[in-house]
Amino acid sequence: MNEDKTIWWNDENKSIMIIDQTLLPNEYKTVEIKNVERLAEAIKRLEVRGAPALGVAGAFGVALAAVTCESDAEFPETIAEAAELLKSTRPTAVNLAWGVDKVVKSMENLPPEMAKFLALTSAKSIADNDTKMCMLLGHNGAKLMPQIGSVLTHCNAGALACSSWGTALGVIRSAVKGGRKISVYSCETRPLLQGSRLTAFELARDNIPVTTIVDSEAAFLMRQGKIDAVIVGADRITSDAVFNKIGTYMHAVCAKHHNIPFYVAAPTSTFDFDAKESDIVIEERSRDEVANLFGKKTVPDGVDVVNYAFDATPLDLVTAIVTEKGVLYPPYDFGSLK
Amino acid sequence: MNEDKTIWWNDENKSIMIIDQTLLPNEYKTVEIKNVERLAEAIKRLEVRGAPALGVAGAFGVALAAVTCESDAEFPETIAEAAELLKSTRPTAVNLAWGVDKVVKSMENLPPEMAKFLALTSAKSIADNDTKMCMLLGHNGAKLMPQIGSVLTHCNAGALACSSWGTALGVIRSAVKGGRKISVYSCETRPLLQGSRLTAFELARDNIPVTTIVDSEAAFLMRQGKIDAVIVGADRITSDAVFNKIGTYMHAVCAKHHNIPFYVAAPTSTFDFDAKESDIVIEERSRDEVANLFGKKTVPDGVDVVNYAFDATPLDLVTAIVTEKGVLYPPYDFGSLK
Repeated sequence: MNEDKTIWWNDENKSIMIIDQTLLPNEYKTVEIKNVERLAEAIKRLEVRGAPALGVAGAFGVALAAVTCESDAEFPETIAEAAELLKSTRPTAVNLAWGVDKVVKSMENLPPEMAKFLALTSAKSIADNDTKMCMLLGHNGAKLMPQIGSVLTHCNAGALACSSWGTALGVIRSAVKGGRKISVYSCETRPLLQGSRLTAFELARDNIPVTTIVDSEAAFLMRQGKIDAVIVGADRITSDAVFNKIGTYMHAVCAKHHNIPFYVAAPTSTFDFDAKESDIVIEERSRDEVANLFGKKTVPDGVDVVNYAFDATPLDLVTAIVTEKGVLYPPYDFGSLK
Repeated sequence: MNEDKTIWWNDENKSIMIIDQTLLPNEYKTVEIKNVERLAEAIKRLEVRGAPALGVAGAFGVALAAVTCESDAEFPETIAEAAELLKSTRPTAVNLAWGVDKVVKSMENLPPEMAKFLALTSAKSIADNDTKMCMLLGHNGAKLMPQIGSVLTHCNAGALACSSWGTALGVIRSAVKGGRKISVYSCETRPLLQGSRLTAFELARDNIPVTTIVDSEAAFLMRQGKIDAVIVGADRITSDAVFNKIGTYMHAVCAKHHNIPFYVAAPTSTFDFDAKESDIVIEERSRDEVANLFGKKTVPDGVDVVNYAFDATPLDLVTAIVTEKGVLYPPYDFGSLK
C-alpha cells in the first residue's frame, strides 16, 4: 500500500488515473479520466478526495485540459474554463485551487505547444513533491507520537488523501517505521465514512493496529484514558483556525478537556496566510449524504438536514502543527512558512 | 402521535403489542408478542427500546409469563426464569430490571391464580404511571427551555422511548404546548440512528421543527451560537454519573466548553441510588452494528470495532436533572427522590 499511488498520470493515453475511493473497502478499482468534466465529477463525488490529493488532481486536471486541447486559438479559453470548473467543485479545500493555479501559472505567456509540455511537467512535479512532502512531514511529526500508545484520528488524512504516504497517517507511519508501538482509533467519520472505509483500510494493509469507533465515542475513550494523542489533517489553515472534516472541532474541544495533545498535520500548501476564519465559506453538502444510507431512507421525508462538510477549530485548541518544513507550536507565527 | 402508544397490553389475546422501531421511519408496523422469548429477542434487537419503555416491557414480560403459565407447579420457576431472561437482555438499562422486579414483587407469596391477576394489574399500572410520569416530568422541565430558541437532543428520549409523551422530548412537547417557540437539532445517533429515524419522525409528526445532523456536527453548531440548550434522557443515574446513549458525554463536554446548559430528563425509576459510575458495566454491542449498514460492509474485514452502547457523564457537567418529582440542581442530593 505504501508504494501505491492514489492519483497518477497515464503517459500512454494522456489521461489521469485514480482509485475510486467511494467503492472502498468493498472494491479496489482504478478509473481512467480523459477529460476535465469527468474529473470535476470525480472530485464532487469524492472518488478522489483529501486535501493534498485534490492539489494533485487540480494540477493534473489543468494539464489534461492543456494536452488534450486541439485548437491553438481556443487554448487560453480552454485553460481558463478548466481552472474555473475545477476550483468550483470543492470551494473550501485550498489545495485544489493551489494546484490549479500553480499549473496555470507554469504556462503563463507561453505558446500552446510549450505550455502543454510545461503544464504536464509542472503537474507531475506537484505529484512527486506531494509524496516527498508527506515523507518529510511524517519524519518531522514522528517525534510527537507516543513511544507506546493509542492515537485517535478522524476522517482520512492518509495515503489515500495524498499521492501516497499521507499527512496525519504519514506521521503515524513514520513513527511506526521508527520503532514506536502505536495503535490507532479511527473515527468512522459520518456521513461518508472515510474513517472506517479508508483509514481503517490503509492502516490494516500496513499492519498498523486499528480499531474503528463511531465518532461520538471518542470523548468517552478519552475519559477512560485510552487516547494518548489526537492527530488529524487539514483542508485549509487560516491565520486563526484549522478547517478540516466536520467533527474535528468536537475532538479538539474534548482533547482540551482531557489534557490530551491535539495535533494537525498539513503541508504548507494548506495554509491560507492572509485569510481569517470569518472569511471562509464552509461547503454544505447534500441532504442525501445524511438521509440515505446505501439506498435506505434514514431521515423521514420533510425533515431538514444541515450537512457541513467541514468545521473550524481555533488555533488555541491546537497543540502543534506538523508541516514538511518543521513543527510549529503556539503562539503560531506562519511567517516562516511563506 | 402524542396519543399513540409505543407498547401496550392486548387483553383479548393475552399478548404484548409493540411498534417495531427498527423499521421506522420507512414502515410503521405493530408486532404482537406472545411469549417471553420473543420479547427478549425484541428487546435485544431494539424493536422496543428507550429506558422507560423498557421498564414497561419488563413489567408486561413478567405478566405475560405469569398469565400464560399453564402449570401451577412450575409457576414459581417460570416467573424466575422469565425475570432472569428479561434482565439479561440489556444489562445497563436500570428501568428494565426495575419493571421486572416490581411485577415479580407484586406476586410475592400469592397462589398462581391471584398472582396472575395482580401481575397484570401491576404491569398495566406501570404503563399508565409511565405516561403520567412523562406528563409531570415534561411539565416540570418546560420552564428550563428557551422562550424562543434551538435545543439539541441525542438519541430518542421521546414518546417512542416511553409508553407515550417522552422524557427529554416530553419536556420539549410541554414547552411547545405552553407556547414556547422551540426548534430541535436531532443528532442522528450512530450506530443505530435513533435520532434521525425516531426523534425526527415523532417531532415532525407533532409539527415541532426538527433538523437532523450527524453527531459530530453538534459542537460546531454550538460554536456558531446555534444551540441554546441540550436535553437528553438517561438509562441509569448513579450517585456520580448519568449513563445514556454513547455520545452523550461528548455533548456534555462541548456544552460546558460553550457555556450552554446541559439537561437530563429521567424518571426516578432511572436512579440507582446506591451505585457509583465504577460499579456499572457498560454494554458493548456487536461489531456488525457499526461495520454493516443495511447489508453493506463499511469497515474492512479483520478491523476491530469497539461499540459501547452507553457512556457515562459525570454530574459536574449536568446543569439540572428533570424528574416527575421536580427539578434537581447541583450539588445533587438524590435523597428526596427515594
